[in-house]
Amino acid sequence: MVVQCDYVLEKQLSHFGWSRDNAPQITIEPGETVEFRITDTGGGEITQDSTADDISSMNFERFMPLTGPIAVDGAKASDALKITFLGFRPAGWGWSMISHMYGILPDQFPDPFLKIWNYDPSGQSPIDYEGKAHFPMRPFPGVIGLARDCEETLSCLPPHTSGGNLDVRDLTEGTELYLPVEVDGGLLSLGDTHVAQGHGELAGTALESPVDVSVKVELVKDANLAAPQFTTPGRPNSHVDEVGYFVTCGISSDLREGARQSTSQMIDLLTRLHSLSAIDAYLLCSLCGDLVINEMVNTPVNVVSLYFPKSVFE
Amino acid sequence: MVVQCDYVLEKQLSHFGWSRDNAPQITIEPGETVEFRITDTGGGEITQDSTADDISSMNFERFMPLTGPIAVDGAKASDALKITFLGFRPAGWGWSMISHMYGILPDQFPDPFLKIWNYDPSGQSPIDYEGKAHFPMRPFPGVIGLARDCEETLSCLPPHTSGGNLDVRDLTEGTELYLPVEVDGGLLSLGDTHVAQGHGELAGTALESPVDVSVKVELVKDANLAAPQFTTPGRPNSHVDEVGYFVTCGISSDLREGARQSTSQMIDLLTRLHSLSAIDAYLLCSLCGDLVINEMVNTPVNVVSLYFPKSVFE
Repeated sequence: MVVQCDYVLEKQLSHFGWSRDNAPQITIEPGETVEFRITDTGGGEITQDSTADDISSMNFERFMPLTGPIAVDGAKASDALKITFLGFRPAGWGWSMISHMYGILPDQFPDPFLKIWNYDPSGQSPIDYEGKAHFPMRPFPGVIGLARDCEETLSCLPPHTSGGNLDVRDLTEGTELYLPVEVDGGLLSLGDTHVAQGHGELAGTALESPVDVSVKVELVKDANLAAPQFTTPGRPNSHVDEVGYFVTCGISSDLREGARQSTSQMIDLLTRLHSLSAIDAYLLCSLCGDLVINEMVNTPVNVVSLYFPKSVFE
Repeated sequence: MVVQCDYVLEKQLSHFGWSRDNAPQITIEPGETVEFRITDTGGGEITQDSTADDISSMNFERFMPLTGPIAVDGAKASDALKITFLGFRPAGWGWSMISHMYGILPDQFPDPFLKIWNYDPSGQSPIDYEGKAHFPMRPFPGVIGLARDCEETLSCLPPHTSGGNLDVRDLTEGTELYLPVEVDGGLLSLGDTHVAQGHGELAGTALESPVDVSVKVELVKDANLAAPQFTTPGRPNSHVDEVGYFVTCGISSDLREGARQSTSQMIDLLTRLHSLSAIDAYLLCSLCGDLVINEMVNTPVNVVSLYFPKSVFE
């Protein structure tokens, strides 16, 4: 649940990109709390009635709108904003897309695929995938970041050293995130909320969903961070790991190719064990599977594995 | 503890490399159990009296000796061996090395460093790092693999699609590993035992230690696996994750560079928080830190994070 905050920022559909010239919606004192109301990353282009046939006519320039920015009084370059995630209010519906434009296996999955989800926004019931699989709700913002100190407006798609499209699935309740400030006030914006995603977001989308996010924002003077860092309050995998994992190993001199191999092999494994279609398995790998680097020192060959939680089928 | 096995293979110091022409030490029936007694990967070149000054005169051609191979009756190409880890008997001493020859930050750590460890082989007491940090014992074989069907003898250093130097730290008690068979009998060997390592083994060595490993070996006909896969019986991180993690984010178009960034930033963080030297922090990252791919789809920029368990300092 979201908590009562000092400020509420309504959804926005017209704030795209990172710029030091974006005027803040509000300026807060360090230690105050803000509820960011956030649309899904489709920015209105995808509704609960959309199908895969609609993808080709969507306006992707409207994707990934942000809510914000907010300024923090006294924040200067070389400080950090400390953001504590207090609570989440998910909308109860969402979507996932597979397309040749995204994901690490576009060669194997060239055709557009759209899945519309409905789920219990309280999180008390697991999210069901058509009776084939289930997993817990775990909301977080895929995008959270500050403006960078440069003339151009930066795209929302790639992350940067002050945050942005990090897609770190552990930025959830209780986590404390530190983002390096480059411009006066910091200029914090959030977007691209997800309610389920594994490490890697390997098919290119998560379970994308509108979510309101409550945060406390503090100021750490002279933090001098090179990039985002965070602390988790406990076991980050406890929502899925109790009965263990299936794991497939990718073995390659190239980490990206290792990730592709381990994903292909997991798709093979899941389709054999659980009578899923290949695209079902690919999507579930993006939502529930974790890409891990087992070793990157046995020159010149690395091992990248995909850990898929068994609980999804139990 | 190791369990009573049908066969015991003593330590060997002269079996290096993967070859279909290596004669098996024994041939077992599917379902039988074997205790592999394994020297540390130093192969006798490192003793409890060694120091960093000795590294330059070590004979690295004697490193990474294997114990084996064993043949499994009836194993043919396209089958898999299923290996269940039954138990471990660690020696109570070990070593870790940092050298410009290994690790992902040789530019920052060019000087040789050798740490000799003594620890409780029962695992009941945590392993202590000079009063600065502690972590639980969790033994596994860094090398476990089968011979490949090729003319040449393959080096032990790089892993391959039938296993080898995988350095997967979850090949521990209760895990079930499947390795693709390429030659008659499979020709299974083990080596390079570790008692602590994080995902990545990023400084190039783990806590290297002699360990006896008991396994059950079964045969899965016509498994047709492309590479190793395994299942874990429960939470693979439960030995360290109860109080959460410090996490640093590496942000780069190159996954390897992202891993280097997140490691450098974790070294900065640990030296500030816990008064460690940089080389202490680098070594602890190799033994306890986990490299994770958070996203590899926000083209062209990826996020690779290093998760370091807080429990190491509590």
